[in-house]
Amino acid sequence: MADVIALRRELHRHPELGYTEFRTAARVIELLRSWGYDVRFGAEAMDPTARQRVPAAEVMDASFARAQEAGVDAALLDAMRGGLTAVVATRRGGDGPTVGFRFDMDALPVDESPEAGHLPVREGFTSAVPGVMHACGHDGHTAIGLALAERLAAEPLPGTVKLFFQPAEEGGAGARAMAARGVADDVDRIFCMHLGCDLPLGMIATSGVGFLAVRGIEARFVGAPAHAAAAPEKGRHALVAAASALLNVQAMPRFSTGMTRVNVGVLEGGTATNVIPHRARMLLEMRAETLAEVDELDARVRRILEGAAAMQDVAVEIEATGSMPSLTNDDAAMRLVRDEAEASGMFSEVRDTHLVGASEDAGYLMERVQRRGGDATYMIMGTTITAPHHHFAFDIDEEALPSAVTLLERVGRRALAGS
Amino acid sequence: MADVIALRRELHRHPELGYTEFRTAARVIELLRSWGYDVRFGAEAMDPTARQRVPAAEVMDASFARAQEAGVDAALLDAMRGGLTAVVATRRGGDGPTVGFRFDMDALPVDESPEAGHLPVREGFTSAVPGVMHACGHDGHTAIGLALAERLAAEPLPGTVKLFFQPAEEGGAGARAMAARGVADDVDRIFCMHLGCDLPLGMIATSGVGFLAVRGIEARFVGAPAHAAAAPEKGRHALVAAASALLNVQAMPRFSTGMTRVNVGVLEGGTATNVIPHRARMLLEMRAETLAEVDELDARVRRILEGAAAMQDVAVEIEATGSMPSLTNDDAAMRLVRDEAEASGMFSEVRDTHLVGASEDAGYLMERVQRRGGDATYMIMGTTITAPHHHFAFDIDEEALPSAVTLLERVGRRALAGS
Amino acid sequence: MADVIALRRELHRHPELGYTEFRTAARVIELLRSWGYDVRFGAEAMDPTARQRVPAAEVMDASFARAQEAGVDAALLDAMRGGLTAVVATRRGGDGPTVGFRFDMDALPVDESPEAGHLPVREGFTSAVPGVMHACGHDGHTAIGLALAERLAAEPLPGTVKLFFQPAEEGGAGARAMAARGVADDVDRIFCMHLGCDLPLGMIATSGVGFLAVRGIEARFVGAPAHAAAAPEKGRHALVAAASALLNVQAMPRFSTGMTRVNVGVLEGGTATNVIPHRARMLLEMRAETLAEVDELDARVRRILEGAAAMQDVAVEIEATGSMPSLTNDDAAMRLVRDEAEASGMFSEVRDTHLVGASEDAGYLMERVQRRGGDATYMIMGTTITAPHHHFAFDIDEEALPSAVTLLERVGRRALAGS
Amino acid sequence: MADVIALRRELHRHPELGYTEFRTAARVIELLRSWGYDVRFGAEAMDPTARQRVPAAEVMDASFARAQEAGVDAALLDAMRGGLTAVVATRRGGDGPTVGFRFDMDALPVDESPEAGHLPVREGFTSAVPGVMHACGHDGHTAIGLALAERLAAEPLPGTVKLFFQPAEEGGAGARAMAARGVADDVDRIFCMHLGCDLPLGMIATSGVGFLAVRGIEARFVGAPAHAAAAPEKGRHALVAAASALLNVQAMPRFSTGMTRVNVGVLEGGTATNVIPHRARMLLEMRAETLAEVDELDARVRRILEGAAAMQDVAVEIEATGSMPSLTNDDAAMRLVRDEAEASGMFSEVRDTHLVGASEDAGYLMERVQRRGGDATYMIMGTTITAPHHHFAFDIDEEALPSAVTLLERVGRRALAGS
Repeated sequence: MADVIALRRELHRHPELGYTEFRTAARVIELLRSWGYDVRFGAEAMDPTARQRVPAAEVMDASFARAQEAGVDAALLDAMRGGLTAVVATRRGGDGPTVGFRFDMDALPVDESPEAGHLPVREGFTSAVPGVMHACGHDGHTAIGLALAERLAAEPLPGTVKLFFQPAEEGGAGARAMAARGVADDVDRIFCMHLGCDLPLGMIATSGVGFLAVRGIEARFVGAPAHAAAAPEKGRHALVAAASALLNVQAMPRFSTGMTRVNVGVLEGGTATNVIPHRARMLLEMRAETLAEVDELDARVRRILEGAAAMQDVAVEIEATGSMPSLTNDDAAMRLVRDEAEASGMFSEVRDTHLVGASEDAGYLMERVQRRGGDATYMIMGTTITAPHHHFAFDIDEEALPSAVTLLERVGRRALAGS
Repeated sequence: MADVIALRRELHRHPELGYTEFRTAARVIELLRSWGYDVRFGAEAMDPTARQRVPAAEVMDASFARAQEAGVDAALLDAMRGGLTAVVATRRGGDGPTVGFRFDMDALPVDESPEAGHLPVREGFTSAVPGVMHACGHDGHTAIGLALAERLAAEPLPGTVKLFFQPAEEGGAGARAMAARGVADDVDRIFCMHLGCDLPLGMIATSGVGFLAVRGIEARFVGAPAHAAAAPEKGRHALVAAASALLNVQAMPRFSTGMTRVNVGVLEGGTATNVIPHRARMLLEMRAETLAEVDELDARVRRILEGAAAMQDVAVEIEATGSMPSLTNDDAAMRLVRDEAEASGMFSEVRDTHLVGASEDAGYLMERVQRRGGDATYMIMGTTITAPHHHFAFDIDEEALPSAVTLLERVGRRALAGS
Repeated sequence: MADVIALRRELHRHPELGYTEFRTAARVIELLRSWGYDVRFGAEAMDPTARQRVPAAEVMDASFARAQEAGVDAALLDAMRGGLTAVVATRRGGDGPTVGFRFDMDALPVDESPEAGHLPVREGFTSAVPGVMHACGHDGHTAIGLALAERLAAEPLPGTVKLFFQPAEEGGAGARAMAARGVADDVDRIFCMHLGCDLPLGMIATSGVGFLAVRGIEARFVGAPAHAAAAPEKGRHALVAAASALLNVQAMPRFSTGMTRVNVGVLEGGTATNVIPHRARMLLEMRAETLAEVDELDARVRRILEGAAAMQDVAVEIEATGSMPSLTNDDAAMRLVRDEAEASGMFSEVRDTHLVGASEDAGYLMERVQRRGGDATYMIMGTTITAPHHHFAFDIDEEALPSAVTLLERVGRRALAGS
Repeated sequence: MADVIALRRELHRHPELGYTEFRTAARVIELLRSWGYDVRFGAEAMDPTARQRVPAAEVMDASFARAQEAGVDAALLDAMRGGLTAVVATRRGGDGPTVGFRFDMDALPVDESPEAGHLPVREGFTSAVPGVMHACGHDGHTAIGLALAERLAAEPLPGTVKLFFQPAEEGGAGARAMAARGVADDVDRIFCMHLGCDLPLGMIATSGVGFLAVRGIEARFVGAPAHAAAAPEKGRHALVAAASALLNVQAMPRFSTGMTRVNVGVLEGGTATNVIPHRARMLLEMRAETLAEVDELDARVRRILEGAAAMQDVAVEIEATGSMPSLTNDDAAMRLVRDEAEASGMFSEVRDTHLVGASEDAGYLMERVQRRGGDATYMIMGTTITAPHHHFAFDIDEEALPSAVTLLERVGRRALAGS
């Protein structure tokens, strides 16, 4: 049996941003094939037009080149060209139900911590790609998915298992691109999962709640350049506009109607100190419990961006950069997870809900199953983390990985048996 | 005789940032040599340790590679490796005085306007280097210097002429690096010049005044990253700190004691919308009529940067990135220019002063001459400009070039004759 | 029987700020006495040292003078001098339990809407006090309490009823001042209530939830004045510091751990346009679900205030101005309310909880009862409001008043009977 | 002869804001009458419709009442009712020229320093009016004017002297109101003066330069109130808009075309911490060397105010609150002052210009004289000050007063003699 911890460390060492998971997906495909799965990928596994936030050509090309240098099979790479990095693996058994599991594979634009206390440093498996890091645990997710696949391939199944390895969970809506291709339309029950989320090792929640709908916005401010000393009054200062917008966006009121979030995550502008900066680019996101509230935040953000630009006689172009829905968990799927978690004896505590407060595109796949009468849940596997998700010193406690595999195997076998 | 307008257009087409003027300097060297000058360059023409704001290795390498691809002589390039792009040309005649002229060669990080009305577009000599542009007229300065060199080489001189072609006027203190090497220490009288500065075609000022002392600062804010939805309160938002600092820096009071300037020219921070941005980098400059006022501005800026960082529990590192002195013009040199300008009949108006309000590193070379009892002036050659200096649509009226050459030749001959 | 709607309109016409409820409290005392209650007030009903945000002397004196002019009994006024405006009324019956009801009497510093569509305008009972308004429904609360008192006085009671009419709910912690005097220490069960809170007419919630702990802060910035034209650089601009602080306070991150609120409610600074403003005063509040989170917000606010002041070389004094706890409702009390509400047939819907998200000092009295083994609930009486609470156009639907009185009477009789 | 220092201290003790100089003007009138001047005041000395920034009724009434209590003559008060506090005194002699002198009488809304080191504290003549202070030296100006009047009344004059004691120099355009009444239309030469302005004791400048044109603006932001905890998202936060506007106004670029100033001098908004503040009022001023630049600043300020309001969905009303022109000094008048200053032997240094950088409404009177072919100058009398003008610890060195009187007497006698 594959060693889930060794797999996770291998994946951690080679992180790839959303829609550039060439090496990761190829490794997933080869292992799944070796265990006898029917594996679909490239345009067969996803609808490229349903993607969002596809990276710039140079980012994609660099990752593609790294995969080529690493010796990834050319035919696989060819099928994935342009960022078609989704993988769907099927193993058919008896005429029992079709049970899906979904895992995400993408990493983040974060520079991994070089500090001695960071486990990947100590054990020598830090990111080999500068500026990219598995800082959200998706390396663990993919490793769990692969180990689960091997276990479920070991003996005949009463139904059909479908494993979804998705690209670009971090803002790219990879699940939407897969859902749009119809890959989940024959699934009766789907299980999704995340490690960590502030649930410590030994605990499990049969559902994560509080997933927020999210929308991203890119704003481009365009003022007028001028010599900063000879004629400052002839310039139109794009960064003064952007800074005012940033503070006002962050200062939007809390909503009494539910949780909201807002973050200006990126701001870049100007070229030199002796030129009044005439261009600035801002990336931000808004989250809320419902789409209506996201719409309200969106309207407020646009008002702020336009007002801030007007203050400085600067133009602003505003563009939506992507979004994700909220998600709903079903009691039946949650109960099944609780039963198996309790029966396994591996967990010190089994909760029905754990408040997450982030966003997740798994809802796209879950909704496809639910729409046809199936059920779904998004469970949280406890693991003690060393820093917040997305932090450069983030790490999981790897002890959580083997028990996650065992639990999912139990869940899968019971669901495949139709209970 | 070389066509000064054609020369200017050739230089305009191949702009190079400060300390990466490999192609430009090589062209200057070859022409000067062809006219019989004794030409010194590389480490002979400047002290590399006196430079500031030397560009990053990749910027320098890219410019170096472009010069190689353009077929620049390898021996020249080798001598300039690492950004040693100063050139000093000497032609000795009788035992009259030594007269210097100084020209600057560097371009700016500006994307040239592609609009049809822009002369370089119409005439097909726009920048071949994306993101780099001669947006301050230094292409014209260098062309004038070369045409002047050819004129002064045509017949015996009563004294010695020294031509200084300097790199990195735009913040790099290229003149300081040349002065530190002692290249102006044998000069009795030095003439410097700038095109434009809002003085229209046909006019000339025998001195530019109001040149401001300047200092640059780089601030690096370091907060803490966190997932923007799952745990925003665990982040420390470097961009909120930077935006507050930016507005406060721009809002520093005017000084009743004299002109001041301030500009936050660059701000960059953050990686993704779902991560609280934990790094931001800000470049800014301050100018004033005296160094004491620059020091006062500097103290205020540091107070603001530290206070803004403290507000967000963010750290900030502050570093001075370079400075320039103010400059002083001498009556004797100004009178000589006035006499020749009036005698030439080429100018509709000759002014004694023109208020510039920018900064200039020519003061470093002028001060070397003045310290030893010599005199100096920094004259402004009128030319009607199409947009402010440093603007992407900046252009000069090329009609100003031939008369500038003629005037400088007259000024040079008279100064060399000892009057 | 008194007309609860007429009473409410009378109170609405004469609003009084917290701890200046001289006229209101005197009216309450006189009516309660007329119905045979044992009425305590002044220092007998509250501990003045446990108050917070006691208004300035001139505010208190003005209200006192208005009460005198209105002919309020001098002996009553004398006992209330200095803002001792609490009232406790007791009616003893059989040896059954002691049942308390709590009502608040204070108004807000809001200028009432003069628009024709506003019911108090239409019916002629708008505030007679410029700048003060019953914009939160406490006029209705007091009227309900009085009508209830009359009903409960009509016949013998099986236990003892205690009615608490409290001053200064809006930030003044009037309930704390009463609790500190021990007035609720013999109560077995206490019922509190609020009208509105976005619960429409016809509905009732047996408990309001989401009451937030709150703390207030006053910050005083002290810079240096200077002539704004002759020497702006000699000033230290307190308003620039305050504006930066304001934006940063409003921009504090949402907490993933629960609801938070923050509001800079008042900012005042400067004297004239030609003087650099050297003083500014800011009042703000922070709220959260737990005291620990309020402490965390408090630490962040102080960091912001100090950093903003440091940016402008300005001093800042920070002072806590008051706080309120969160509150807990008991199942037994909630069930009793539900039973009576349903039995009354007056409500279209009875809910167990209604999310309020504001703060309330009733918790001080409730906690006294609960500490000794008693129980308590804070119910929400639905009434359709015309504008948000605290808005100048706020109004209730008066139809809610009579049914509130009837429900409380039923609740009281049953609780007094010991069930 | 009156003691100019004693007079100054008397005036210092009873400061009065612009257009409320009831007590001061009455004292001026009585002294001038006692010396035989023909004194005009009230509507005879000014055109009330040409005033600006007339104080609110309660401010004016309070000052009026203080003057009544001080026993000021009722007839005088009656003539000045409503703020008609200008005084014009004439003494006719031979048929020589008419020579004017202008002095200002108003104080500032500043709370005087109580520190022991402050001379008025030490000598017991601090302001008797809380919140009002002679913090700009006008007490000295008026005392000088009175002492001058006495001297010029001592013997026959070859021409006519006119003394202008004006109200409301600090923003109220009192000089405009007097000029509009035609009081200076028969004057051939007018002398104006200011103490201090950073010129030390012993020095004098025959002209103050750099007087800036100024315009004031009042902005009123109107948002929407809401309960800060129960429904913050229903509010429209006027103070967030105002704070953003304030920072952007202060951050307007320096102008390369000349000196500019900007100051948000007053900001007030909000009522209570638990209400989203829906009103804020901002007073600001802009200054520049020319009216065209003031217009440009004005346009920018309006753009900022409107953009800031739009960001927060808040309305804003903008109103100009007053303005002042720049002023021009004439060589002939300056030469006369220089001659007398040198001849007097009282001054260590006589300068032709001293840069002030503030604004002055004296230009209104000077322009009336100049328009008809007369000449004028605004001289600066050196006196070492203890803190910047308008600071609560401002004070002059009183030694400057007697020599100012003597110089003006010499200047007056020579001008009256027609030289």
